[in-house]
Amino acid sequence: MPNKTYRLIYDCPDQVGLIAKTTQFIASHNGCISESTQHTDAISKRFFSRIEIQASSLDISLAEFKAAFDPIARECQMNWKVVESTYRQKVVILASKQSHCLSDLLDRWHSNDLYCDIIAVISNHDDQRALVEHYGIAYQHIPVSKENKTEAFEKITALVDDYAADTIVLARYMQILPKELCDKYPHHILNIHHSFLPSFVGAKPYHQAAARGVKLIGATCHYVTEDLDEGPIIEQDVERISHAEGIEDLVRVGKDIEKRVLARGLRYHLEDRVMVDGNKTVILS
Amino acid sequence: MPNKTYRLIYDCPDQVGLIAKTTQFIASHNGCISESTQHTDAISKRFFSRIEIQASSLDISLAEFKAAFDPIARECQMNWKVVESTYRQKVVILASKQSHCLSDLLDRWHSNDLYCDIIAVISNHDDQRALVEHYGIAYQHIPVSKENKTEAFEKITALVDDYAADTIVLARYMQILPKELCDKYPHHILNIHHSFLPSFVGAKPYHQAAARGVKLIGATCHYVTEDLDEGPIIEQDVERISHAEGIEDLVRVGKDIEKRVLARGLRYHLEDRVMVDGNKTVILS
Amino acid sequence: MPNKTYRLIYDCPDQVGLIAKTTQFIASHNGCISESTQHTDAISKRFFSRIEIQASSLDISLAEFKAAFDPIARECQMNWKVVESTYRQKVVILASKQSHCLSDLLDRWHSNDLYCDIIAVISNHDDQRALVEHYGIAYQHIPVSKENKTEAFEKITALVDDYAADTIVLARYMQILPKELCDKYPHHILNIHHSFLPSFVGAKPYHQAAARGVKLIGATCHYVTEDLDEGPIIEQDVERISHAEGIEDLVRVGKDIEKRVLARGLRYHLEDRVMVDGNKTVILS
Amino acid sequence: MPNKTYRLIYDCPDQVGLIAKTTQFIASHNGCISESTQHTDAISKRFFSRIEIQASSLDISLAEFKAAFDPIARECQMNWKVVESTYRQKVVILASKQSHCLSDLLDRWHSNDLYCDIIAVISNHDDQRALVEHYGIAYQHIPVSKENKTEAFEKITALVDDYAADTIVLARYMQILPKELCDKYPHHILNIHHSFLPSFVGAKPYHQAAARGVKLIGATCHYVTEDLDEGPIIEQDVERISHAEGIEDLVRVGKDIEKRVLARGLRYHLEDRVMVDGNKTVILS
Repeated sequence: MPNKTYRLIYDCPDQVGLIAKTTQFIASHNGCISESTQHTDAISKRFFSRIEIQASSLDISLAEFKAAFDPIARECQMNWKVVESTYRQKVVILASKQSHCLSDLLDRWHSNDLYCDIIAVISNHDDQRALVEHYGIAYQHIPVSKENKTEAFEKITALVDDYAADTIVLARYMQILPKELCDKYPHHILNIHHSFLPSFVGAKPYHQAAARGVKLIGATCHYVTEDLDEGPIIEQDVERISHAEGIEDLVRVGKDIEKRVLARGLRYHLEDRVMVDGNKTVILS
Repeated sequence: MPNKTYRLIYDCPDQVGLIAKTTQFIASHNGCISESTQHTDAISKRFFSRIEIQASSLDISLAEFKAAFDPIARECQMNWKVVESTYRQKVVILASKQSHCLSDLLDRWHSNDLYCDIIAVISNHDDQRALVEHYGIAYQHIPVSKENKTEAFEKITALVDDYAADTIVLARYMQILPKELCDKYPHHILNIHHSFLPSFVGAKPYHQAAARGVKLIGATCHYVTEDLDEGPIIEQDVERISHAEGIEDLVRVGKDIEKRVLARGLRYHLEDRVMVDGNKTVILS
Repeated sequence: MPNKTYRLIYDCPDQVGLIAKTTQFIASHNGCISESTQHTDAISKRFFSRIEIQASSLDISLAEFKAAFDPIARECQMNWKVVESTYRQKVVILASKQSHCLSDLLDRWHSNDLYCDIIAVISNHDDQRALVEHYGIAYQHIPVSKENKTEAFEKITALVDDYAADTIVLARYMQILPKELCDKYPHHILNIHHSFLPSFVGAKPYHQAAARGVKLIGATCHYVTEDLDEGPIIEQDVERISHAEGIEDLVRVGKDIEKRVLARGLRYHLEDRVMVDGNKTVILS
Repeated sequence: MPNKTYRLIYDCPDQVGLIAKTTQFIASHNGCISESTQHTDAISKRFFSRIEIQASSLDISLAEFKAAFDPIARECQMNWKVVESTYRQKVVILASKQSHCLSDLLDRWHSNDLYCDIIAVISNHDDQRALVEHYGIAYQHIPVSKENKTEAFEKITALVDDYAADTIVLARYMQILPKELCDKYPHHILNIHHSFLPSFVGAKPYHQAAARGVKLIGATCHYVTEDLDEGPIIEQDVERISHAEGIEDLVRVGKDIEKRVLARGLRYHLEDRVMVDGNKTVILS
């Protein structure tokens, strides 16, 4: 994060003069735009925009920016926010027995390739405690069973609330979140599904892939909604496999895809590049 | 096709001494093996093998090879064949209005990158006649409608039979083949489906892909069976798309994927590299 | 090309208020922006922008737009142009014996996937005359030898001038263009080089790739400059190969990459998406 | 590693009856072949083969196998070995300040996705000690400077010798190994170079890539020879970048490629799938 920027993110009905109004406002405060991306959805006629402004170039504070931009936002019927690029989102990771995504995220975070504060890892197993604590991060072991599912997720939700988490990452967490938790953090819970959605929803996607005889397997990072594996897709990728590779090979190859797809999706999210348009995402990068 | 080879292709229950028996037979006739690939399916315990032998090195003719190898094949319960690499399969292409796959196949064939004889193109529209006839290939215009579907496919089947076609290629032919035709040419009819199967079966897959908001689109070359889009997959590939790309872009990007996936799948098929294992393929390359 | 747009393309030193000035001008003429992409080079501090405006939304003509925007452009020291999206660039293709790129471009053009007028194909061999004339395009056979190279390229240059070509495409044209021709059409001549540059410059790149034992081969579409294979790169792609694939396989696989890389690069160019920044390109898509 | 196999690996001049002799030998000892791959180099006419035999199916021990196969190997002029799949190679990793490759390898090893014993990490910096020791692996900090380079590498070589290392992995170790060490472990030292070789040899390849304006960046896993970045290539991969991505982005994207390319290359090596043919590799997978 070399220089602090303000990120102005908004979407609204497309209309003549929209960019002009926004950028005129920024220019009137001497704002130097370092990055600007936008998109107009051809069907919904909705406009999506993300602008990064050098904080040091502006003659007003963030609070003043918010107050002064508000009338424009109202006039244009914007969903909007402006955030400082130096704000580190508080991230809670939910993990299970497998370490590959977790270990990968922790190393990226430790190496300053993921700009956020990972404040806790919650897991239904105790396996990854040593790794997580090695990085100085709190580890919460909350077993989940058929019987205790309701209480377990009440505990998890209470923890996440207490941590004031901005973002929840399911790093191959093998439990289905209850509707209440999904609804409480809309577009703030990311999951990595181990298939190229919409192929192979549900359980054991690599087994499904092997059974169908596909020639590429993939992984999908998406926002979690109450409909399993149906949330807005943020990022996907694939790798080639052959008939010679069995289930174990697919699992191994798939782990590599999962790691990079989750890390990319999370980075887009943390950099406020992901906007949701119905059940689709606009990635403003 | 620099040198003539014999291609010995077989599959059978896996058993000790199988490769030894086969290669011992070849060696006993002084056969020089230029390529050999095999695969054992871990679940079905079935063995698949493809061996190319320099024809000039053998001390027996193809007919003698067949006769002499037959006892081994029986003993090992092989499905098997031996073919000359110089044999040009007779290919009939079924096409519709769109030219991209057709034109691509014709240029590859004309440039000697597809080793076969394309003997006719059958289409339900007359649009591609000039292109096809430019290449000196017969063009059969057989319109297909709801009303005439049965007769139309009787005509098509009669034509394909008359041509003694080895292989039928559906180059974005937009009609569903009747069960009778599928059954008559099992594993000899190739289709290109414009999605990454099993995602988006059926009609308008690019519209489905756009609606789901996937980040990669794909195409699938598969053998045609009576279950639409359910046949054994031969080859697949994908390309990245973004939110900025509308349906028309997806169609355009998709055409590129379709062209190369169909061409690859067809090449594997023409080189006798595709073996069918239940509803999956083994590609011996 | 569903709706006519004006494409405003410019680059200039980055400065506060640049987007505001430009979009304010467009809004003041009621211009509805359908697409807008920009880039600031972090090192050169140069700003690159491409804006598509619905022509029907504007209250001024193209000529009036040009006149009215000129003062802003001067003030901001812009290199700029505004063009109608419905203008079909005049394209001359230079080809040699091989047909794959040529045939591919002709089919795309014929299928309305390449928006331009291909007005002539010039070749140093007569091989592709029938194909080109099938599409109703003029074919000029101008043999090039060591002895006649100067006169041959004088003829070619005269032809290109006469055609008033906007863009010249080297579709695997195996001759090195003289400096004079390169200088006359800067950033208007596209070449496809059959390697992943900067690897394997010069002759026989697939042989070089085989000798080095690389695991992926590629192709590069770039603007032609007088320094062979050194011009700004527009697009690249690769495919995986294995030790089992010989030179002939590499050539065949490479053709597929060449086709799609050249077609993509040319489309970016025809849609005015390619801006040159020193020896690099900015692709505003 | 579900079942123990013997891996028979050999290369020799191609000759009639080679596969027959080998597989006849295996069959005569009741050997059940679970995997067999081979390759004949079209130019050198050299034959490369890797066969996995179920250990439990054989009626002889590994020592007896070696003794009994030796006459065949001599007769056919083979370079050969037979190894047990359950043998865990002793691996020493050389690392520097960066953790991404190291952390990735350690997690794979810990998750049983890399079958070997990582017995030590040697580094010229002390940064990764805590991570390595978390995994219970010895960490040796041996600083290297211009002045002490000779002694430092004497120490390193002595350590590697003491550990009786089978394989040395340079996981972004930023030092050039002395010729003596390279010569001592031919085809047993793997390096990850952070470019798509042969592009951008030497220092700061991402800076070189940015300067040239390439549209894809890559990484290369290769055996270390005394000629820097010139050893036989084992594995490569690439990712797409755009003009919008600066050096820091290239470094970040590149890390992902480096991790998976090094891990794939190392896995091929540990599974005895990499054979060297001059300055190229044959990957028998």
